[in-house]
Amino acid sequence: MQAQLIALDWGTTSLRAYLLGPAGQVLNTRSLDYGIMQLPVTPRQVAGQQCADGFELAFDEACGDWLDAHPGIPVIACGMVGSAQGWREAPYRETPASLQALSTALQIVRSVRGVDVHIVPGVIQRSSLPNVMRGEETQVLGVLQSHPLINDCLIGLPGSHSKWVQVQDGCLVHFDTFMTGELYAAACDHTILGRTQQRDGSFDQCAFERGVGVASSTDGLLGPLSTLFSARTLGLTGQLSATAQPDYVSGLLIGHELCALGNALHHRRGEQAMPAVILIGNSQLCERYQLALAACGFGDVRLAEQATEQGLWHLAHAAGLVRHNTLEG
Amino acid sequence: MQAQLIALDWGTTSLRAYLLGPAGQVLNTRSLDYGIMQLPVTPRQVAGQQCADGFELAFDEACGDWLDAHPGIPVIACGMVGSAQGWREAPYRETPASLQALSTALQIVRSVRGVDVHIVPGVIQRSSLPNVMRGEETQVLGVLQSHPLINDCLIGLPGSHSKWVQVQDGCLVHFDTFMTGELYAAACDHTILGRTQQRDGSFDQCAFERGVGVASSTDGLLGPLSTLFSARTLGLTGQLSATAQPDYVSGLLIGHELCALGNALHHRRGEQAMPAVILIGNSQLCERYQLALAACGFGDVRLAEQATEQGLWHLAHAAGLVRHNTLEG
Repeated sequence: MQAQLIALDWGTTSLRAYLLGPAGQVLNTRSLDYGIMQLPVTPRQVAGQQCADGFELAFDEACGDWLDAHPGIPVIACGMVGSAQGWREAPYRETPASLQALSTALQIVRSVRGVDVHIVPGVIQRSSLPNVMRGEETQVLGVLQSHPLINDCLIGLPGSHSKWVQVQDGCLVHFDTFMTGELYAAACDHTILGRTQQRDGSFDQCAFERGVGVASSTDGLLGPLSTLFSARTLGLTGQLSATAQPDYVSGLLIGHELCALGNALHHRRGEQAMPAVILIGNSQLCERYQLALAACGFGDVRLAEQATEQGLWHLAHAAGLVRHNTLEG
Repeated sequence: MQAQLIALDWGTTSLRAYLLGPAGQVLNTRSLDYGIMQLPVTPRQVAGQQCADGFELAFDEACGDWLDAHPGIPVIACGMVGSAQGWREAPYRETPASLQALSTALQIVRSVRGVDVHIVPGVIQRSSLPNVMRGEETQVLGVLQSHPLINDCLIGLPGSHSKWVQVQDGCLVHFDTFMTGELYAAACDHTILGRTQQRDGSFDQCAFERGVGVASSTDGLLGPLSTLFSARTLGLTGQLSATAQPDYVSGLLIGHELCALGNALHHRRGEQAMPAVILIGNSQLCERYQLALAACGFGDVRLAEQATEQGLWHLAHAAGLVRHNTLEG
């Protein structure tokens, strides 16, 4: 099957490359540790020239052989590669942001091979507290293309900085960020809570759900700055084992994230029912969020797959870089 | 003036010793770094015996000369020295806790000098999420003795773990803990927020109050896990300078602490007005909390002084270790 597009998901700590076929299907994929903050540094020959640029070196290593095998194949990339610290800055586009708007704002950087890399811009929301994303906009657009009938929904992207994106009529209209994952790590690794924790690598669902339950109870009114201390006091009083504490803390924080999100949505939407939720992310983290969403009153929750590669494919298509053929075509 | 009592405030990281006169007035004081987690380790002679016990060494260094000068003077101590990791465990007393209840539960450890050190127990609240304190109970009792007319009030002890104690009829009836100070340090030192911060040592009151304002606004509904990210995005968009970011984050977290506390109090107290607040703590931190309390609807806020030494004095008096003489007596 003839490859049509090279699609790159290029973030802070990793670079994932996809070789896509005539209907956007994945023909090949590879993952490297060359995020924009950890690029290769050893100079070598690229396309017959001595090269010391980390972006060029990583790009060549990720897909030089694909470029050789498919002359003229277009290349598109999303993520932090388009930030001010990236290969070429692709300035943020404002909300509401559509596939069309982003596809007309791709920034081009020409590599030493002479190949143009088209970089997807991030999205900024200029609300009283601004919000920004880079990479997630592409995932959201990928989901929307796969779920064309959804009009009013909330797309969740759990992670070290979770994003919750409200989508209407195919546009990203509003989003919020929660630093839940990063603050979880900071609380466990750099506060008194870590001293009594033991990790055995398995997921203690009971402890996790107990934490979610506290966050969504009357005790949760005190907020995470207070409920976190209960991981220590429940331990001191013999009511929470050392091995249960990490997942209890995880449940507390994810529970507080979702309760606060629910409160803010109620405030914004009035009497409207909670929107349907679609989750994008690694399956273990999405499992936790599914459990917590159910406990926090979000009834309709689905999981999305291949969001990034689908988003990159449809952006490339909208930009005229590829033609979309059905598998039957 | 004849010294009547040696009073020790012995915490995790410091040991403060007071020599108190006939009405509890401070005749002398000294402060050492010998908290229970950083005791002296070099063996030496104490009272004619070779001694390697860190508690004995610290105690002798803090007040050996006072003990020599005032034979038979009683000694009382509060704080983590009474924890399971302390010199002698003084088991928690339960809420509601009064001066009388705590004074009858002092634990005695006899030092190599033959001097009895009377250790004040901490307090535990066995609510659905338990809460514990050690040292703060003594400060609260000291404040109550200095403000005998106050019946229904909230005593705030800001710190790395802030305590908020509801007092009724001279008893500690309920308290909450917020890990605000410790989480502030973890967020600034171990998350992405620290990367764009600059500290110049001065207090940026404007940035602090802006953070409090966000926490208590509609944007604050999203909770601290979300609003913290605005320190980054306001910086990215040129709306918050690097030097303003630390105090903005401090205002966010203290604001969220006080808003959540206010919500929980409303839930507990129904239509009753907010209680009067008395703050105990270092003056710079209390200044921040005074600003934030005013913004969060707490109208009546006072500062307490000499809470620890007054609390130790009155506990010693209630236990019969000293007689209380008025200054005129």
